[in-house]
Amino acid sequence: MIETFPNPHPRRDYLIEHRVGEFTSLCPKTGQPDFGKITIRYVAGQACIELRSLKIYLQAYRDKGIYYEDITNVILDDLVASCSPKWMQVKTRWTVRGGIRTVVRAEHGERPDSHHAR
Amino acid sequence: MIETFPNPHPRRDYLIEHRVGEFTSLCPKTGQPDFGKITIRYVAGQACIELRSLKIYLQAYRDKGIYYEDITNVILDDLVASCSPKWMQVKTRWTVRGGIRTVVRAEHGERPDSHHAR
Amino acid sequence: MIETFPNPHPRRDYLIEHRVGEFTSLCPKTGQPDFGKITIRYVAGQACIELRSLKIYLQAYRDKGIYYEDITNVILDDLVASCSPKWMQVKTRWTVRGGIRTVVRAEHGERPDSHHAR
Amino acid sequence: MIETFPNPHPRRDYLIEHRVGEFTSLCPKTGQPDFGKITIRYVAGQACIELRSLKIYLQAYRDKGIYYEDITNVILDDLVASCSPKWMQVKTRWTVRGGIRTVVRAEHGERPDSHHAR
Amino acid sequence: MIETFPNPHPRRDYLIEHRVGEFTSLCPKTGQPDFGKITIRYVAGQACIELRSLKIYLQAYRDKGIYYEDITNVILDDLVASCSPKWMQVKTRWTVRGGIRTVVRAEHGERPDSHHAR
Amino acid sequence: MIETFPNPHPRRDYLIEHRVGEFTSLCPKTGQPDFGKITIRYVAGQACIELRSLKIYLQAYRDKGIYYEDITNVILDDLVASCSPKWMQVKTRWTVRGGIRTVVRAEHGERPDSHHAR
Amino acid sequence: MIETFPNPHPRRDYLIEHRVGEFTSLCPKTGQPDFGKITIRYVAGQACIELRSLKIYLQAYRDKGIYYEDITNVILDDLVASCSPKWMQVKTRWTVRGGIRTVVRAEHGERPDSHHAR
Amino acid sequence: MIETFPNPHPRRDYLIEHRVGEFTSLCPKTGQPDFGKITIRYVAGQACIELRSLKIYLQAYRDKGIYYEDITNVILDDLVASCSPKWMQVKTRWTVRGGIRTVVRAEHGERPDSHHAR
Amino acid sequence: MIETFPNPHPRRDYLIEHRVGEFTSLCPKTGQPDFGKITIRYVAGQACIELRSLKIYLQAYRDKGIYYEDITNVILDDLVASCSPKWMQVKTRWTVRGGIRTVVRAEHGERPDSHHAR
Amino acid sequence: MIETFPNPHPRRDYLIEHRVGEFTSLCPKTGQPDFGKITIRYVAGQACIELRSLKIYLQAYRDKGIYYEDITNVILDDLVASCSPKWMQVKTRWTVRGGIRTVVRAEHGERPDSHHAR
Repeated sequence: MIETFPNPHPRRDYLIEHRVGEFTSLCPKTGQPDFGKITIRYVAGQACIELRSLKIYLQAYRDKGIYYEDITNVILDDLVASCSPKWMQVKTRWTVRGGIRTVVRAEHGERPDSHHAR
Repeated sequence: MIETFPNPHPRRDYLIEHRVGEFTSLCPKTGQPDFGKITIRYVAGQACIELRSLKIYLQAYRDKGIYYEDITNVILDDLVASCSPKWMQVKTRWTVRGGIRTVVRAEHGERPDSHHAR
Repeated sequence: MIETFPNPHPRRDYLIEHRVGEFTSLCPKTGQPDFGKITIRYVAGQACIELRSLKIYLQAYRDKGIYYEDITNVILDDLVASCSPKWMQVKTRWTVRGGIRTVVRAEHGERPDSHHAR
Repeated sequence: MIETFPNPHPRRDYLIEHRVGEFTSLCPKTGQPDFGKITIRYVAGQACIELRSLKIYLQAYRDKGIYYEDITNVILDDLVASCSPKWMQVKTRWTVRGGIRTVVRAEHGERPDSHHAR
Repeated sequence: MIETFPNPHPRRDYLIEHRVGEFTSLCPKTGQPDFGKITIRYVAGQACIELRSLKIYLQAYRDKGIYYEDITNVILDDLVASCSPKWMQVKTRWTVRGGIRTVVRAEHGERPDSHHAR
Repeated sequence: MIETFPNPHPRRDYLIEHRVGEFTSLCPKTGQPDFGKITIRYVAGQACIELRSLKIYLQAYRDKGIYYEDITNVILDDLVASCSPKWMQVKTRWTVRGGIRTVVRAEHGERPDSHHAR
Repeated sequence: MIETFPNPHPRRDYLIEHRVGEFTSLCPKTGQPDFGKITIRYVAGQACIELRSLKIYLQAYRDKGIYYEDITNVILDDLVASCSPKWMQVKTRWTVRGGIRTVVRAEHGERPDSHHAR
Repeated sequence: MIETFPNPHPRRDYLIEHRVGEFTSLCPKTGQPDFGKITIRYVAGQACIELRSLKIYLQAYRDKGIYYEDITNVILDDLVASCSPKWMQVKTRWTVRGGIRTVVRAEHGERPDSHHAR
Repeated sequence: MIETFPNPHPRRDYLIEHRVGEFTSLCPKTGQPDFGKITIRYVAGQACIELRSLKIYLQAYRDKGIYYEDITNVILDDLVASCSPKWMQVKTRWTVRGGIRTVVRAEHGERPDSHHAR
Repeated sequence: MIETFPNPHPRRDYLIEHRVGEFTSLCPKTGQPDFGKITIRYVAGQACIELRSLKIYLQAYRDKGIYYEDITNVILDDLVASCSPKWMQVKTRWTVRGGIRTVVRAEHGERPDSHHAR
């Protein structure tokens, strides 16, 4: 479902970051809509994520009931499966519920040395 | 008192953060209300904290007289007891008293390597 | 309950503003705590509001169940009764509930001309 | 569909503002999701808008295809019909599309004098 | 060139605002690129501006050499000609040149009363 | 005590504003230090306020016990006496006491028309 | 010294604003450098101010000793003489001296109606 | 002079931070007032600093002439002597003097490992 | 094409950063303009990048269709070829497309130790 | 030319930072003024930099034509020569030229361990 294109510079470990400001899913308990922001950071292997298919992939959650903790890991798993990155991090930030704002962050693989320093 | 649900991805060390913007307790010396913000960050073990029960647990401090330093550690102890996280940090930030703004931060366990870099 | 002190410059119409960052009451439907910020602006008549008694007056709402729209008007009525200002405005801003942030603003009397321009 | 409750202080013209940070509808041309923020400001007549029903009313747009200009006026019409306010303003702000950020603002009735000054 | 669609609520004077964050033209003296942000605010008559055609219209300046003062008025003239608004304002803000940041703002027609207050 | 120098352009009504970020006095009830910021805006008559003498004048409050409402008016009176401005406004903003932040604003004379618009 | 070019749209009253972030002159008393920011807003008559000559004109103050109040009016006079605007405002904002930050604002002519609302 | 109370959780190394927004002392050369902000961060040993006595201790500098570099170290020494922390850092930030803003930061002891990551 | 000048202090490893706020290229798929901001950080070897030639080099992308991931690496390659730095990092940040904001960051060489800490 | 005073606490490695918001020099190619901000951070040896002489030293660049990269290193060299610090960093940030904002940062000596963490 997530399309990719060949990494144009596969011999260099460089960092790609996509910040998605418009994301919505449903709460699995109440069925109420949840609204979040998603940040995807990765060091590509042979493939890069194509942006339009990423947008469509994320829109498919619009009618799914799923927990914050679960969705973060499932997106990470799906993206890793689609492009086999050397390293990837998915971070989701959610609007306030009951006075509480939640952030979840999951990673796959080892971050290359040159990108540890900010 | 704090309910949990099974960690949906227990084999991956990922970070969960809850920021509570609405917290109030009483000053043990003067009985005056204190107002704070609480940030809870943790790497779950087998269980995740259920948000609604967390909200109710924190509301129970509304009528308790307790010091900033104490409350931070007690919340950490209670949350650790409820969900046995691999790592947890509780940070409380308080409104100004006598021109002084206080922040207290306590941790339990060793933060997994992949989460040391911000 | 709200104490006052004599306006030290009663012959000049000047503006006094108190911003209260720490306010909490209860929702009359659910009993859950509400958190708000209150701004009081007034042009004094013969009396000014004493700050310590204002703080204590507002703390008395901690255990009351009352709607946003109601509380704003009641505070305005009580303050007007206590100090008979030439003009007074009470504005309450509340934390998010169900994704909605509410602000209510009520006024008493005519704002003196010199204070219309910001 | 939108419930109301009796205005607790109908003899005073005061201002009520609800800011809805979580709103989504569909683009009528492309079917793609739109994300917006809505601000509702009004001076109540005999009735005030009940917040929970407002939230549910706005959620009903989740699967509707409708233009920015249209939706702003329709919400204004529906809210006016439900609570007959003395004055009401609806403002919608939308996320970027094609590098363009859009804001639409519609009003019903005459804003009472005391609320012209900010 | 600029397409329009019928104003869905022609009997109400309401405000539409488009903020274009991505605009570039050429300096008529040096041929160097200029970068600006454009805000278009209007009260529609019988027609509303269609966003996609607005985007394409503005992209056509990419290779034109034209002064800040001129471009602002020309865009206003073109948009007025396309949709005959009751009132329209075009504001352009430009990046720094020689340590100077320039803003130009032009209007057409009389702004309806209800929109004078912010 | 406050020195002045001749207004270099007395035939034009223009606006002068001094923002003083460093001000401290004592609370008349508790003797505790108060910290504030002061903004002075005026349209000069024949004389302008000399900055160094203004600084020294304001430092003289360091050991005085005086209420917020009083100090604002006294500074306004003293400055008006020293330079006979056409219009003057003094605004004082104070740090939080008991969770309450106070602002006081007093004016002398009629603000010239050309300066009503911001 | 200040060059102009013909106003490309002399039949419309529109607003031009130049913000100069880099300005320095000398204090006439101490000889120390002063640093300021200057905002020039005007409605052109037959001529517009050319930016490069404006920059050079303002650089000429680098070695002049002159008071804040004076410089603001002199710049206004010089610019008015060069381009005969319908309305012009010059605002200067200065860095802190002795804990005091100063702003001076002077105007020439009557601001056209359509530009009173912001 | 600085009072302490027993550390309620001495077996855990946790971080306490006090930010003092209201501090003033005198310049030892000119006698002019200095204004600063002080941040104290520490990991307590057996004792915690009592806030009210900290406030009074810091107020005692109001009439002392002392350099920025000196005061930072003296406060650190006094606080260390009063509560024997495992680690302590004192940071002072001062308002602008002669266009220069100064910050001084001194530490005592080794910061526990778990608090190196921010 | 990119000019350089001799590094005036070649024996010290120091950091140079250029932030380019005005960059535009074309999308290789749609031909639509892309707008970005570019940050170049490097430790020079024997040569420093001359700013005017850097500006002209970057303007040459105005009519090129090229992916975000590609352009970042190509700029890095070209700059490295022109000045043989000890270390270089190129970071590009792009405006929103389809609700997604993208950042790409690539590095060449090992960052000298003294510059790892921020 | 740069005066110093004896380090009042030479046995402790502590950090001193001076941020200079008002700096101007000339471009060596065009003779046009450059405006920058300078941050000096150091761990003193036996001597501390006296602020007034630092201000006068930096003012001497007002009429010098010198490159960004050069000036940063020259200031570092001069300050190191004057006070022999254990560690020193000079960072210069410049206003926009040709759409490009430049920052240069140079260091002398090894930063003491306790100051690596921010």
